[in-house]
Amino acid sequence: MDKQSKRYQKGIEALRRHLGPDADKYVEAIEEVAPLFAKVNVEFAYGDIYNDENRVLDDRVKELTTISALTVMGDAIPQLKLHIEAALRCGATKEEIVEVITQMLAYCGFPAATNAIMAAKEVFKSIK
Amino acid sequence: MDKQSKRYQKGIEALRRHLGPDADKYVEAIEEVAPLFAKVNVEFAYGDIYNDENRVLDDRVKELTTISALTVMGDAIPQLKLHIEAALRCGATKEEIVEVITQMLAYCGFPAATNAIMAAKEVFKSIK
Amino acid sequence: MDKQSKRYQKGIEALRRHLGPDADKYVEAIEEVAPLFAKVNVEFAYGDIYNDENRVLDDRVKELTTISALTVMGDAIPQLKLHIEAALRCGATKEEIVEVITQMLAYCGFPAATNAIMAAKEVFKSIK
Amino acid sequence: MDKQSKRYQKGIEALRRHLGPDADKYVEAIEEVAPLFAKVNVEFAYGDIYNDENRVLDDRVKELTTISALTVMGDAIPQLKLHIEAALRCGATKEEIVEVITQMLAYCGFPAATNAIMAAKEVFKSIK
Amino acid sequence: MDKQSKRYQKGIEALRRHLGPDADKYVEAIEEVAPLFAKVNVEFAYGDIYNDENRVLDDRVKELTTISALTVMGDAIPQLKLHIEAALRCGATKEEIVEVITQMLAYCGFPAATNAIMAAKEVFKSIK
Amino acid sequence: MDKQSKRYQKGIEALRRHLGPDADKYVEAIEEVAPLFAKVNVEFAYGDIYNDENRVLDDRVKELTTISALTVMGDAIPQLKLHIEAALRCGATKEEIVEVITQMLAYCGFPAATNAIMAAKEVFKSIK
Repeated sequence: MDKQSKRYQKGIEALRRHLGPDADKYVEAIEEVAPLFAKVNVEFAYGDIYNDENRVLDDRVKELTTISALTVMGDAIPQLKLHIEAALRCGATKEEIVEVITQMLAYCGFPAATNAIMAAKEVFKSIK
Repeated sequence: MDKQSKRYQKGIEALRRHLGPDADKYVEAIEEVAPLFAKVNVEFAYGDIYNDENRVLDDRVKELTTISALTVMGDAIPQLKLHIEAALRCGATKEEIVEVITQMLAYCGFPAATNAIMAAKEVFKSIK
Repeated sequence: MDKQSKRYQKGIEALRRHLGPDADKYVEAIEEVAPLFAKVNVEFAYGDIYNDENRVLDDRVKELTTISALTVMGDAIPQLKLHIEAALRCGATKEEIVEVITQMLAYCGFPAATNAIMAAKEVFKSIK
Repeated sequence: MDKQSKRYQKGIEALRRHLGPDADKYVEAIEEVAPLFAKVNVEFAYGDIYNDENRVLDDRVKELTTISALTVMGDAIPQLKLHIEAALRCGATKEEIVEVITQMLAYCGFPAATNAIMAAKEVFKSIK
Repeated sequence: MDKQSKRYQKGIEALRRHLGPDADKYVEAIEEVAPLFAKVNVEFAYGDIYNDENRVLDDRVKELTTISALTVMGDAIPQLKLHIEAALRCGATKEEIVEVITQMLAYCGFPAATNAIMAAKEVFKSIK
Repeated sequence: MDKQSKRYQKGIEALRRHLGPDADKYVEAIEEVAPLFAKVNVEFAYGDIYNDENRVLDDRVKELTTISALTVMGDAIPQLKLHIEAALRCGATKEEIVEVITQMLAYCGFPAATNAIMAAKEVFKSIK
């Protein structure tokens, strides 16, 4: 994996901006078993998608839309927790995060939204 | 169904703000077969959720988070189209909507996101 | 496919009881492309599951639990329509079916439940 | 949150009838982080939906339809456990619950249904 | 979008190998509304994933694993049809495709698998 | 449950071939709470589906298509682990399994695929 390439650098920079100090460890844990997976996680998900030159939404709104998506998916609690932390890091408030998850009640019902709100509660506690 | 109650009024007002001129017809189509369903659609989804007194997110961001959620759900294309129109009505731009759906590639993969981007294309064409 | 076997007969009997006059055509449409699929649809889904000797729930309750499941699944509208007809055939009322779908709002949110209630409306119209 | 309102009382009464002695603690755990979420959980999900004046299904059948829905959803195991207990509280038998989950094999396949049957086994053990 | 880049070329080559003569039109339909989406569809999905230098599975097995995935997803029928055609193009037989979809009955139940088998039937008819 | 029947024997043989030494314990754990469930798990899933006389795919390819399906489902991690072990038992390599899960990024996005790749990492560690 060429970690010096422009594409990789563009991705890892966005990844660190969103996930903070654990970004590199996150990639390494995947890389140990699946190098291509780790590479596209950086280059595609964070380089192409979160760090596109022409993007019109700021990191805070991008994180809020990711939180609503992960809430309704229902089976992505570890990723939801990561992105709740990322949203706070990118300028969203706890109130905004709670409001987004509560709004999702209308789209995914109570089970998925309850698991999401409990995940948020856990993240909020762990970082105060 | 008491359509004069404060709760109902609070909901129908938000529903019209988001869905525009078709809001009332939307409710009536459901009411014909399922009165309680129609009632809670107005009172709960739009009154309690979209029109809460203490809400901290504006209608535009609320619609963008709904669009990402409906995109990843994959089986909610009619609702996605409604909310793409609603998002435009609430101040979001086409570029923002396209960016949100594109971002969802990282969370739901290509099939669901492709169906969503094609739905957006259709809505954009129908309203220009 | 041995259609005279005891297992097959037990299944096709239940299939006719639930799906009515179109039961055989339903199986044949699948059989043309996928004989094993058609066979297990009869023997397993309807023979083993709906027609088990030791079953404790009657056909009406079995159909209502199937309707709630197909509602929350969201991507099974053709099957939901079949089972709304089946539920009526097995003694459920329109009010009960509407109540089950409305109840699902709490578990799957509005998009899936709205698609389900509209499917019910369509079935009710087509059979009156 | 106005806990003395008629709507809230109607909801909390149904919640206690279904969830038993832990109902209030359940609401409080959510209320700590998301007051509006907790409020609509009581007023909408239990007041409007489970305690509607015109409902035609009894609590036992309502719980069985919830169990089938939570089974096929696959990612709602904590809620499924709550509702297996609730179903027993509302008059359903273990045999009926096992039959509903087994029936869902035809609609969600083995992985989701296996996780559900194992959850039922755990609940049954914990309460005997 | 730099269509002459090595990455893009690597992707479009794989896309044509799998989707055949309609590959370019497929990309253009997306590009009209969402250029970045179209770009990563080629570069990431087909360049990075299907055309990786170190891949160990041949195109036929890759297509069969995609067919099983699209079958259980349930809400990706248009993509399933594309990949049934792609699988035939890459050397899979109709019998193998039918067997994969039938096998999925154990993982997603009858509704999703029935919709998939009917999609296969339609594709088989359209190409003979 | 007639464990000497031809159907049951055909199923339990396939189950042992795929799941190895723990196959019988797997069935017994289900049988304790849900005998019919256990019976059709053996007779239908493994007898009818994995051990059909006319099957054209070998066990290795069958397991790889199951792995892609369980990956995109997202909420079937325990079953995914079982089938990663089964795939190795049936002749698939670690590289093939990792490649299938990585390919699924295009169909289910990062959250489900990341949980799957981490499950694979865990299985690989536990068996070396």
